[in-house]
Amino acid sequence: MNKITIDKSKNVPLYIQLYSQIKRFIENGSLPGGYKLPTIRSLAKELGVNNITVINAYKLLEQNGYVYTKVGSGTYVCEDIKKEEDLDETFKLTDQGEIPLRKGIINFASSSLNPELFPVEDFGDLINRVLRRDGGYAFEYQDTRGYKPLRESIKEFVKKDEIFTYVENIQVISGGQQGIDVVSKALINFEDSIIVERPTYSWALASFESRGAEILEVDLQKDGINLEELEDKLKKFKPKFIYTIPNFHNPTGIVYSEDKKKKLIELAEKYETYVLEDDFASDLSFTEEKILPLKAYDKYDRVIYIRSFSKIYMPGLRLGFIIAPERLVSSFLKAKYVTDLSTSGLMQRAFDLYLRENIWKSHIGEIKQVMKKRFEKMGKGLQTLKNYVEFEYPKGGFYYWLRLKNNISAKNLYSKCLERNLLIVPGDMFFAIKKENNFIRLSFASCELEEIEKGINILKEVLEGESNENGIYLPII
Amino acid sequence: MNKITIDKSKNVPLYIQLYSQIKRFIENGSLPGGYKLPTIRSLAKELGVNNITVINAYKLLEQNGYVYTKVGSGTYVCEDIKKEEDLDETFKLTDQGEIPLRKGIINFASSSLNPELFPVEDFGDLINRVLRRDGGYAFEYQDTRGYKPLRESIKEFVKKDEIFTYVENIQVISGGQQGIDVVSKALINFEDSIIVERPTYSWALASFESRGAEILEVDLQKDGINLEELEDKLKKFKPKFIYTIPNFHNPTGIVYSEDKKKKLIELAEKYETYVLEDDFASDLSFTEEKILPLKAYDKYDRVIYIRSFSKIYMPGLRLGFIIAPERLVSSFLKAKYVTDLSTSGLMQRAFDLYLRENIWKSHIGEIKQVMKKRFEKMGKGLQTLKNYVEFEYPKGGFYYWLRLKNNISAKNLYSKCLERNLLIVPGDMFFAIKKENNFIRLSFASCELEEIEKGINILKEVLEGESNENGIYLPII
Repeated sequence: MNKITIDKSKNVPLYIQLYSQIKRFIENGSLPGGYKLPTIRSLAKELGVNNITVINAYKLLEQNGYVYTKVGSGTYVCEDIKKEEDLDETFKLTDQGEIPLRKGIINFASSSLNPELFPVEDFGDLINRVLRRDGGYAFEYQDTRGYKPLRESIKEFVKKDEIFTYVENIQVISGGQQGIDVVSKALINFEDSIIVERPTYSWALASFESRGAEILEVDLQKDGINLEELEDKLKKFKPKFIYTIPNFHNPTGIVYSEDKKKKLIELAEKYETYVLEDDFASDLSFTEEKILPLKAYDKYDRVIYIRSFSKIYMPGLRLGFIIAPERLVSSFLKAKYVTDLSTSGLMQRAFDLYLRENIWKSHIGEIKQVMKKRFEKMGKGLQTLKNYVEFEYPKGGFYYWLRLKNNISAKNLYSKCLERNLLIVPGDMFFAIKKENNFIRLSFASCELEEIEKGINILKEVLEGESNENGIYLPII
Repeated sequence: MNKITIDKSKNVPLYIQLYSQIKRFIENGSLPGGYKLPTIRSLAKELGVNNITVINAYKLLEQNGYVYTKVGSGTYVCEDIKKEEDLDETFKLTDQGEIPLRKGIINFASSSLNPELFPVEDFGDLINRVLRRDGGYAFEYQDTRGYKPLRESIKEFVKKDEIFTYVENIQVISGGQQGIDVVSKALINFEDSIIVERPTYSWALASFESRGAEILEVDLQKDGINLEELEDKLKKFKPKFIYTIPNFHNPTGIVYSEDKKKKLIELAEKYETYVLEDDFASDLSFTEEKILPLKAYDKYDRVIYIRSFSKIYMPGLRLGFIIAPERLVSSFLKAKYVTDLSTSGLMQRAFDLYLRENIWKSHIGEIKQVMKKRFEKMGKGLQTLKNYVEFEYPKGGFYYWLRLKNNISAKNLYSKCLERNLLIVPGDMFFAIKKENNFIRLSFASCELEEIEKGINILKEVLEGESNENGIYLPII
């Protein structure tokens, strides 16, 4: 612990300085899991600070999942803190490499529809119309903000979600991930804090981390983020933004209550920060309930709204948009320029017609029907696994998020399922700091009904085997 | 100057620490142009370091263009050091906003062919073939490394440039700018040093700066980068890479000599760094001379080769590739994933056929003929401006780089030309540190021959006016 330096002339509170440095030692492995931290008194003395500084730092470390306290014994570093290498693992899994996506595999991991559901014919016709109409102009560099008629169509498109905005606030992007990347470039400087939900989408985390951000997790409850914990962290860390997926959350499927949506925005206003809303599946609701994006409630212009067209239309479009708070429009524009100059003009022009002529409406109608059947099929199957898993029914989107009972390890389960030609996603990749090894995510986005049935059966058999191996259900006669 | 802190326990030499901090104060304006730095002796005393530390820091600042020495008087901060806001200015200019690209304007600023030259018909046919052949699969998420058949085609395509590589080392990207962004993400951490040519492509600079890099400039000579200056900086700063455009350089049009290409690679090997080669126009040579990419000479696997298809084929493709040194393949892959998951499958599949069936060959043949005529036309016109400008003839590419004589200001010239409906690029945006205000870049990429003639005439009239206004040519009778 002798490498810690406290700089009293800095603008950062001493306990935060101490927290950050210990945190980094834990993350890079110099303080390994199980390591006992110095006592409060001795560390305070060594650093020449008050006891209360060390107490506050240790408390924060505990709140953020880095250490735990054993009463009467001291403070210890947690096991399973995420390391740099874990990104490699996540990567291997989500990379569409040859091994996981071998033929005949049942894919409960995919976050996009199976290609048979894509509106390819409609889209092919639109591409040809654009080629005839615009010729080479469809292949020029486009305005970095996006092709203006498309931005007009988007402005109209989002009215159904009660978002009322201006063409000037719309930034076209090449898919949702690029949106996250552009916002990160524009807003995150080295060592800035960012708040994320626990758990959350792993490639958003990777993007924030790549900018050198300090990630802070706040627990997700059934109706959305834990507001008390959030406010506490907003106060202490003054984060650049709060990243959230308020509807059909990835991976948990959670939808924020309307009340929490409103309160989240109030908190962003109160602490003068932003909310980055990642909306990848708003159109894919299975209920009659009105579920609106956060942005629809954004009376303070605090919500950065990213909407991807990849998940529901076609990933290959590489198309989406940001609706930016007025103050951020020009910084996003610059970041987009640095990122790739502009988005494909051909795709923008074809998709403009797709929106403008309301072709999307019949497509979405069909997709919803198909997805709802898959959702029900998987839900019914999962009912039969209640001995092994706990879950909630999502109201839309693609995902079931399962907590494994009986200490079953998600990683073992993943490997065993893969041996049986079933691909699932172990949940640890969705945690920013302390990994959890007893969750899995199942997606029904790309599987036909028979595949869902088959997959669930495999899962059941594997779970039964696992439980037996662990000896948990061996009857004691 | 009282905010400087020298940390003797750090791994960074003291004079570099001192240099970096003074540099930052100059860049952020706290030390304004004309400010006299403390004497060597007094600063050394204040900081508790040797005189030689301050001497070395001041020397570096001078070498890198931040300060100048007046003999017998002291060390002063230079005027015209680039500021954050300058990016805005660059941006306004290169952004395809409504003002600069109004109708009827003659565009000597564009770096892409006029759309009439795009192979739209061929490409439209290929898109339709792909749609028929692959259906929805063309719109799936693609392998993040790129569509494998395209990577095979690229491997064959670069053989003509004497680059022999493996499919595994090829990373498909959505255009050259994304390539720069991906490499920056993978290699640059906060405060890492990067070497660039002086002058260089401004949006590469913006990308490096966005990662928090320390930019170091090395002068460009007629046959390539100044190798002595380069070696000196390699030794002192251990940069992550050297960014270069060795063929038909942007903005200068320079081609590195074969000898310098080889020596540059030797230096990269010697100092264990990389060369990032930006190749946007290799196919566009006007001479019979064999001009090869750096990568063709890369026996040490030190060259990161970025090739864009935007400039010579169509910008709207948003397509290019990186050939990565073996050791960097997986870090680029991860960075690409974070950036946008994958590149459009439709474009990749259509372009695969374009390369595979050698359709590009006839296109390039035509383009070369057209460009050569434009190059000659502009060159001839510029001959008549010899009283006002100096320049070299480029051997290929799109650009003439003009030094303005008689203290004519490039910015004034830009404004006056714009009033007359001629768009040119003032050269200051191509300098990373100290801006130069007496260069302009003229591109002949997108202008028909008559437009070139008209544009040069306008430029001539404006230059004559400028010179008169400056009173330089008023005859003294």
